[in-house]
Amino acid sequence: MKATLMHAAGDVRIADVPDPVLVDPTDAIVRVTSACICGSDLWPYADMAPSESGAPMGHEAIGVVEEVGAGVETIKRGDLVIMPFAYSDGTCDFCHEGLHTACVHGGFFANGGLNGAQAEALRIPLADGTLYPLNVGADDALIPSLLTLSDVLGTGHHAAVVAGVKPGHKVAVVGDGAVGLCGVIAAKRLGAEQIIVMGRHQVRTDLARELGATDVVAERGEEAIQRVRELTGGTGVHGVLECVGTAASTETSVAIARPGGAVGRVGVPHYGTIPLAQPMFYKNVRIGGGPAPVRAYIDELLPDILDGKIQPGRVFDRTVGLDGVPDGYRAMAGRESIKVLVTP
Amino acid sequence: MKATLMHAAGDVRIADVPDPVLVDPTDAIVRVTSACICGSDLWPYADMAPSESGAPMGHEAIGVVEEVGAGVETIKRGDLVIMPFAYSDGTCDFCHEGLHTACVHGGFFANGGLNGAQAEALRIPLADGTLYPLNVGADDALIPSLLTLSDVLGTGHHAAVVAGVKPGHKVAVVGDGAVGLCGVIAAKRLGAEQIIVMGRHQVRTDLARELGATDVVAERGEEAIQRVRELTGGTGVHGVLECVGTAASTETSVAIARPGGAVGRVGVPHYGTIPLAQPMFYKNVRIGGGPAPVRAYIDELLPDILDGKIQPGRVFDRTVGLDGVPDGYRAMAGRESIKVLVTP
Repeated sequence: MKATLMHAAGDVRIADVPDPVLVDPTDAIVRVTSACICGSDLWPYADMAPSESGAPMGHEAIGVVEEVGAGVETIKRGDLVIMPFAYSDGTCDFCHEGLHTACVHGGFFANGGLNGAQAEALRIPLADGTLYPLNVGADDALIPSLLTLSDVLGTGHHAAVVAGVKPGHKVAVVGDGAVGLCGVIAAKRLGAEQIIVMGRHQVRTDLARELGATDVVAERGEEAIQRVRELTGGTGVHGVLECVGTAASTETSVAIARPGGAVGRVGVPHYGTIPLAQPMFYKNVRIGGGPAPVRAYIDELLPDILDGKIQPGRVFDRTVGLDGVPDGYRAMAGRESIKVLVTP
Repeated sequence: MKATLMHAAGDVRIADVPDPVLVDPTDAIVRVTSACICGSDLWPYADMAPSESGAPMGHEAIGVVEEVGAGVETIKRGDLVIMPFAYSDGTCDFCHEGLHTACVHGGFFANGGLNGAQAEALRIPLADGTLYPLNVGADDALIPSLLTLSDVLGTGHHAAVVAGVKPGHKVAVVGDGAVGLCGVIAAKRLGAEQIIVMGRHQVRTDLARELGATDVVAERGEEAIQRVRELTGGTGVHGVLECVGTAASTETSVAIARPGGAVGRVGVPHYGTIPLAQPMFYKNVRIGGGPAPVRAYIDELLPDILDGKIQPGRVFDRTVGLDGVPDGYRAMAGRESIKVLVTP
């Protein structure tokens, strides 16, 4: 079958690889009908060291279950399923607490030797705990929105949950990528009254406004901090959704939080320490977040997609076949595209 | 009147100073019947730059209201009151949200020119919002415990609240000072099942056990982290109460938190950044905390003191008059004493 392999920064190839096979009795094989390229895939695209064998890519998919192991009990052949970016057993303490990304038997797709979703098919460990069956067809108009449940919508929602967003809150979303845009959707859905999106790409900030943002701050650094203070009566925001992952964006996030506020960070951190430990202390600002337990959030978010209340699929602005994936990376890295949908 | 002034590291003096007078109509004058020396007072005692005029000291007190300004409505002359370490108007948005330490008109005693509580009397700004009247006598046997409501008990409780302590949780308290010991009381009160106190002073850790600690870890650094993991089935604790304020204690706190856990920091931070930003992210660990809104917590904590359910006054192991204050600092800095009660 065909699958995406990254061989070095900027070097993405479509290769013929062996078809996935069941390894453990709890595995399933899923034929991918929709996948996508993630903002986090752009980090290795920027700096990956050369690899002759290449790294499998992609951790978001909807697909059809083709085969299940003898130990799979609830997932059936023919099911159309969402594949969250992490696999999980659904039975350990962490899964029961809703933190599937800390599952004691879990892990992450396209990571640690596991196959990726930018491919024709892939092996799913712990299929019963991992996969979420859908009651729609693989060609349903809602598929793009449903596909965001595998990562970006759940990730934006996680940022909002950790940032403690509640009705009436003033909220800032740092970053105008697909996760930031989903953060806008999530903050609005949780009742935020003011949603300030911080970004400088007008196509994206225009879309953010359509999705619920009330203000756009294009400045950066100290100017951005002042702008947010002005927009919030001097105090800053109750909740900050950090959707970038750099030291600078984290510093801004902490600085614009109001006393007693919180920062939910979901941008994969490319920094070693969290700055402003003393101002954060004197303001009683909390910071948290991490890999979103998107599996746990599907129950809550799915009905709003099915009802048409939210349209996170709008973050996709380009669709390609597998052969178009390398160009999709190029387009996303060059900010020509917000997020690329892949139909293998 | 007599008051405590610190002139330099290690140089604490009792001086004759002018009696406090009403300045604003919302002020009250309180005659101090009980005050104390705080662990945070030991930071300047260790490193304060010389000052000819000296800095007033002390931010915890119980006392009798001697005089009130024309604008004071609820507090009356003769009231026995708790003075929290921060003053607050009780009416701003932050006070309504229970974050009195972010009051827009508030501030901290013995700070920014304001008088201190290790004195015969002091001026209280915003008396109605700040002071909490008691229905006991100034010589009641519960006074030491009630005095902890002005800072250390509320501060330990804040650490536990921010650490998200809930019934059944495994909790670690980093630090065996008075705040750490009050953290043990708070964690037990909130239903923690396992309470690991991290400290190496046996008098204190013995007291911690009497107050509810189930385990003591005397090791530091990597050894301490391993020990906590062993004691918690390998995963770490749900909640960490950081009651020290150094870079090392903060690093330990983050490292021993379980995935999905939280760190509540109340040790005044003597570090500029929060370490382990990446492990913290991958574990979805939250960190928060700051100056405790002790004024907000009195309503919740006071009944348990009056009922004898908790005895935070046990953190006091020495009582001195004002003239004994300099020696009290010496004893606390030398770890001869956990916390010194002052009866001016």
